[in-house]
Amino acid sequence: MVWQRPDGRQPYQLRPVGFHTGFTHFAPGSVLTKCGDTQVLCTVSFSEGVPKFLAGTGKGWLTSEYRMLPAATQQRQERELLKLSGRTQEIQRLIGRSLRAAIDFEVLGERTLTVDADVLQADAGTRTAAITGGFVALANAISQLMRRGVIKRSPLCGQIAAVSVGLLQEEPYLDLNYVEDVAATVDLNVVMNQHLGIIEIQGTGEEGSFSRTQLNQLLDFAEKGIQQLLIAQREAIADWEEVFVGVRS
Amino acid sequence: MVWQRPDGRQPYQLRPVGFHTGFTHFAPGSVLTKCGDTQVLCTVSFSEGVPKFLAGTGKGWLTSEYRMLPAATQQRQERELLKLSGRTQEIQRLIGRSLRAAIDFEVLGERTLTVDADVLQADAGTRTAAITGGFVALANAISQLMRRGVIKRSPLCGQIAAVSVGLLQEEPYLDLNYVEDVAATVDLNVVMNQHLGIIEIQGTGEEGSFSRTQLNQLLDFAEKGIQQLLIAQREAIADWEEVFVGVRS
Amino acid sequence: MVWQRPDGRQPYQLRPVGFHTGFTHFAPGSVLTKCGDTQVLCTVSFSEGVPKFLAGTGKGWLTSEYRMLPAATQQRQERELLKLSGRTQEIQRLIGRSLRAAIDFEVLGERTLTVDADVLQADAGTRTAAITGGFVALANAISQLMRRGVIKRSPLCGQIAAVSVGLLQEEPYLDLNYVEDVAATVDLNVVMNQHLGIIEIQGTGEEGSFSRTQLNQLLDFAEKGIQQLLIAQREAIADWEEVFVGVRS
Amino acid sequence: MVWQRPDGRQPYQLRPVGFHTGFTHFAPGSVLTKCGDTQVLCTVSFSEGVPKFLAGTGKGWLTSEYRMLPAATQQRQERELLKLSGRTQEIQRLIGRSLRAAIDFEVLGERTLTVDADVLQADAGTRTAAITGGFVALANAISQLMRRGVIKRSPLCGQIAAVSVGLLQEEPYLDLNYVEDVAATVDLNVVMNQHLGIIEIQGTGEEGSFSRTQLNQLLDFAEKGIQQLLIAQREAIADWEEVFVGVRS
Amino acid sequence: MVWQRPDGRQPYQLRPVGFHTGFTHFAPGSVLTKCGDTQVLCTVSFSEGVPKFLAGTGKGWLTSEYRMLPAATQQRQERELLKLSGRTQEIQRLIGRSLRAAIDFEVLGERTLTVDADVLQADAGTRTAAITGGFVALANAISQLMRRGVIKRSPLCGQIAAVSVGLLQEEPYLDLNYVEDVAATVDLNVVMNQHLGIIEIQGTGEEGSFSRTQLNQLLDFAEKGIQQLLIAQREAIADWEEVFVGVRS
Amino acid sequence: MVWQRPDGRQPYQLRPVGFHTGFTHFAPGSVLTKCGDTQVLCTVSFSEGVPKFLAGTGKGWLTSEYRMLPAATQQRQERELLKLSGRTQEIQRLIGRSLRAAIDFEVLGERTLTVDADVLQADAGTRTAAITGGFVALANAISQLMRRGVIKRSPLCGQIAAVSVGLLQEEPYLDLNYVEDVAATVDLNVVMNQHLGIIEIQGTGEEGSFSRTQLNQLLDFAEKGIQQLLIAQREAIADWEEVFVGVRS
Repeated sequence: MVWQRPDGRQPYQLRPVGFHTGFTHFAPGSVLTKCGDTQVLCTVSFSEGVPKFLAGTGKGWLTSEYRMLPAATQQRQERELLKLSGRTQEIQRLIGRSLRAAIDFEVLGERTLTVDADVLQADAGTRTAAITGGFVALANAISQLMRRGVIKRSPLCGQIAAVSVGLLQEEPYLDLNYVEDVAATVDLNVVMNQHLGIIEIQGTGEEGSFSRTQLNQLLDFAEKGIQQLLIAQREAIADWEEVFVGVRS
Repeated sequence: MVWQRPDGRQPYQLRPVGFHTGFTHFAPGSVLTKCGDTQVLCTVSFSEGVPKFLAGTGKGWLTSEYRMLPAATQQRQERELLKLSGRTQEIQRLIGRSLRAAIDFEVLGERTLTVDADVLQADAGTRTAAITGGFVALANAISQLMRRGVIKRSPLCGQIAAVSVGLLQEEPYLDLNYVEDVAATVDLNVVMNQHLGIIEIQGTGEEGSFSRTQLNQLLDFAEKGIQQLLIAQREAIADWEEVFVGVRS
Repeated sequence: MVWQRPDGRQPYQLRPVGFHTGFTHFAPGSVLTKCGDTQVLCTVSFSEGVPKFLAGTGKGWLTSEYRMLPAATQQRQERELLKLSGRTQEIQRLIGRSLRAAIDFEVLGERTLTVDADVLQADAGTRTAAITGGFVALANAISQLMRRGVIKRSPLCGQIAAVSVGLLQEEPYLDLNYVEDVAATVDLNVVMNQHLGIIEIQGTGEEGSFSRTQLNQLLDFAEKGIQQLLIAQREAIADWEEVFVGVRS
Repeated sequence: MVWQRPDGRQPYQLRPVGFHTGFTHFAPGSVLTKCGDTQVLCTVSFSEGVPKFLAGTGKGWLTSEYRMLPAATQQRQERELLKLSGRTQEIQRLIGRSLRAAIDFEVLGERTLTVDADVLQADAGTRTAAITGGFVALANAISQLMRRGVIKRSPLCGQIAAVSVGLLQEEPYLDLNYVEDVAATVDLNVVMNQHLGIIEIQGTGEEGSFSRTQLNQLLDFAEKGIQQLLIAQREAIADWEEVFVGVRS
Repeated sequence: MVWQRPDGRQPYQLRPVGFHTGFTHFAPGSVLTKCGDTQVLCTVSFSEGVPKFLAGTGKGWLTSEYRMLPAATQQRQERELLKLSGRTQEIQRLIGRSLRAAIDFEVLGERTLTVDADVLQADAGTRTAAITGGFVALANAISQLMRRGVIKRSPLCGQIAAVSVGLLQEEPYLDLNYVEDVAATVDLNVVMNQHLGIIEIQGTGEEGSFSRTQLNQLLDFAEKGIQQLLIAQREAIADWEEVFVGVRS
Repeated sequence: MVWQRPDGRQPYQLRPVGFHTGFTHFAPGSVLTKCGDTQVLCTVSFSEGVPKFLAGTGKGWLTSEYRMLPAATQQRQERELLKLSGRTQEIQRLIGRSLRAAIDFEVLGERTLTVDADVLQADAGTRTAAITGGFVALANAISQLMRRGVIKRSPLCGQIAAVSVGLLQEEPYLDLNYVEDVAATVDLNVVMNQHLGIIEIQGTGEEGSFSRTQLNQLLDFAEKGIQQLLIAQREAIADWEEVFVGVRS
């Protein structure tokens, strides 16, 4: 039996992607990111100074927070108040690590970029949408900070995008939505850069294991998806040529 | 010296108001509310059951949560994690009390409506925007719940809107923005119903006191503003005639 | 039907008021305040220094904490441990704002006054008793600090008192006790200064709205009550003439 | 060199003790206890039911909470909010254990007595004052509960009092005040019953050790003090003969 | 330049592994696990009942907690008290997911197995040691529970082991110690079952990306290490043949 | 009826004691302490600097943390996460106070020693095992710090050991195990120094009181036990003669 995708997509096909840039305007970067029905508001804030462990090194930092609005899911979910769930912490750590791979922190100097990813609507793939959209917000923020003269040179040395892939009935599928995510036996999130170098790979087969052959099939699909996302990102960043440096200093 | 409004409004003039209904679609009510540059996403969720103190009474409940996204303000603000600030708690209690005045809880029966007001962008007046937009989301939610047959009769027995007024150089002004809010010596939030009956009044003159004459001038302006908001709300609620009952059972 | 007050008072009559000054003696101000059966221990402490946001401005600060002892109510109430309830936070913010209107912070200089209001017995009106009694403790504290030479000039530039009024069967009543507070459809707390200028007004009609005419009737009663409280306060402050300055510098 | 007591007392002499019974009247027992300048408000509340570990055993429970008001000490102390200090927890556990020795829980049945000890003024010896005064409040509470018919038989089977003793310049002193408490090298708290049986003994010599001979001298002084406290307690309990049963069932 | 391993190991060589079974004896499974200088005490406890989301399904559950003792690292680390770090939560979720793949929860029935992994000494690889040693403790616990008659059939349907691999100077190395872990540009944790099916893969290249070729080299090394660990585990489990079932029911 | 000890010991007989020194090796002192089936891992860490209240005094500090692993008891116990229980706080305060009596803080200078006592297995007497074993770890840590030249002179001026005694059927017994601890009516913990001077005594008779005669019998047994523990400690400390100074400077 072969899995029929609820929205009729091909196995290797992404959901429609959209980046609504400048969605709010107090933060230097603000992008309402849509991947199908998943909507994540990604904002990037800037502040002078770095956390203690970097003070005096001349290097900057990027950190991330991830949260879901209570009404983002089918059933309203309680806000996380006294403590963050393990899931939330894992995701915001992943977003931070992934987007740090885009920045040359020596060029940035002792400043901190904060990426807030707030999920307004959740139809699976929120963490990868947060990374992909967060990158657009990051580029826009750097662009604005340069125009305002706050930073002199662009520290944007890598392009980062992310996508999920999964096994359904032992076959690979790209960019799962919620129904598919629940049905999948294996779920793999992949973060890559502009050269399709792997930045992060997280795969789990709680409902079953997967072979190395299947892993490589999943990665083939992930590569395809990420190539398209990289193009969509560049189209959404007005001054891509100026803001993207492409190599670490 | 007379106060010059930064956006050139008349003293008795509201900022442009907008209600983007159906902004997300998992919650029965979802309205992105704009009052000038202030943007609040108001969603209304529904659940069977009530808090303990009402169990067995046959009456329903409405509760509210209010939060700001970190990048909603000029300077990024930390999320409230371990505990809510006094300000946040005051505001969400105010929103809850105000919107409860719109509902006949005997008609609702033992169900709970939860109004989430998440501020995406804050240019003052977020609590009054949350109440005014929250009412639209509430009406839309009730409308959808009736269409889906979840509730049989509409419990919407009151129309509620809110606005801020303040004294600047001893003169009253309607619907202050952030710059005005900071400059005002007296700040008054007023919540009224469709008959301009007062539901809630909160005035504070930390930087100076105000006379009863000034209080009445402020209330004149508040009435004007609320009359316009009541009209705008009704225009944003497609099936107003069906959903609004207007009297308690 | 007309409301019969349980203690036989006239509608415009206060409960007996008492200020037991010097109730404890480590804090410079300490007043056990009684309004009928409501008992609030108000103490005022003094410390050098101010919160960060005022450091270097030359201005002082006043802050307040409010708490109920567990056995203050008919049913023992749990202490608020991990977090303060919204009600507690609202009240302590109100007390702080109200009593700050009594102080010229430039005269005080970079020092902090802390008003602790601990309710030993609660028969309604605890927040207004805390403000009215807190003012007496504040004046006594300033007086003692001047005698000890800790501060040179009195920063006491305003006299502050507070009272509650409410609507019962659509008629106004002054200084509600617990039974009345529960029965009232509208509850209004009013804080005024020595000129009967309004410092704070908070009215809520969760069980029903109120007209502007009713609001003005309630304020008439509040004014009457506050005039008597202002007199009682001055009688309880031994050296009123020396400690009260009456205008901001 | 011999220690001169600041208040001129003999080494074996208690501070003046006072029990102001019925200080508040919502809780069945309420005693403002004074030991010199130490003032502790002890209230005893009553509720049906017991903690889980006792449910179904037919036995009741007694628990205690201890807290200091912020202005109870020379320097204002922060309230314990997020967590209780080790000191506070130790003291409230000690009060609970000590007063449980006064109650026959089979006679009480599945009910809970809660002793709240709130220190209004602290001049050392607050934990022993809380126990000694808490016992008076406990007896008064039981007496009232019997008069109201809530409990049929008195469960008061033991009389409990407590005192502190200490070594100053290697000599024993009874009932230390704050100055003495700071100067003492050894501090011993003793809780005894009506037969001078030891219920609890806690001695610490952080600044120096003490011999068994000294321990016995300290216990001689503690016995003397407790004998007087037992008499004072009985005088403060109006219906001592009726309420005190004296033996476990 | 080629990386010289500080302990002289070959690139594909594990550190010495040891399982001290029965280290404590109140829990049914207790194994002090050593991987080089890394020491993790893994205990497995058993309780009737399951979390709410499984109640009534007839299925059991396995959960895990991971913590480091403060003195486990070169510099003493604060205990995590108010909240768990993201790292801790990630790790304990990983351990739980991995070891759940070893259990047939329908055979277990509505019971919960809790795996506690407490790191006594940390020289990198603590999470993989916790999984590998946790599996041994799990098998021992099941064995004891069967001997005691608490469970009738063994639910142990999979064998699980884990290891870390990393890139140092672009070359793969197996089972990194602390010095190597810090120096690595890419770090990959791999969890596999007895068929070398992948249960979990987590790779991160914060300091640099990695190619798919490198990923496959790392997986080759991981497979080699896991094969040896699977053998060592079986040797440490006395009654392996009885306790291991090998297929889901 | 006379109590029969479950392990056949004489009333005045200790359980077998063992000190496994150097159990872990990152902390300067690390001792796995066994008293019968009770196992406590005691580690001592060292850091420059002292808490605020000692800064600038030239004096050092010693603090302690005590915790049980979840599987240390017959039934798995939840870890204490949001707050420490009163029991845990009491115990860690006791360990800290007791071991501070071993150190001359003027010789130590402004440094902090942290004693972590983690109970791996609990069969009663964990707090006294933590003190007795903590002392050995402390001596070993000082010895190592002197060899490494971190401290010049030994600050070890006292030898500290602790034991529990209790009344079972009105007779005294030394070093109770869990079964005895539960059955005892009176439980007494005693901490003494090398001269058998009392450092700390804590006795509680919740299930019954005890006479002064019984107290002295219990202390006789405690002295016997502590004398043996002092010998065992000295045997476990390799360079006892060098590290122990014996008098405060």
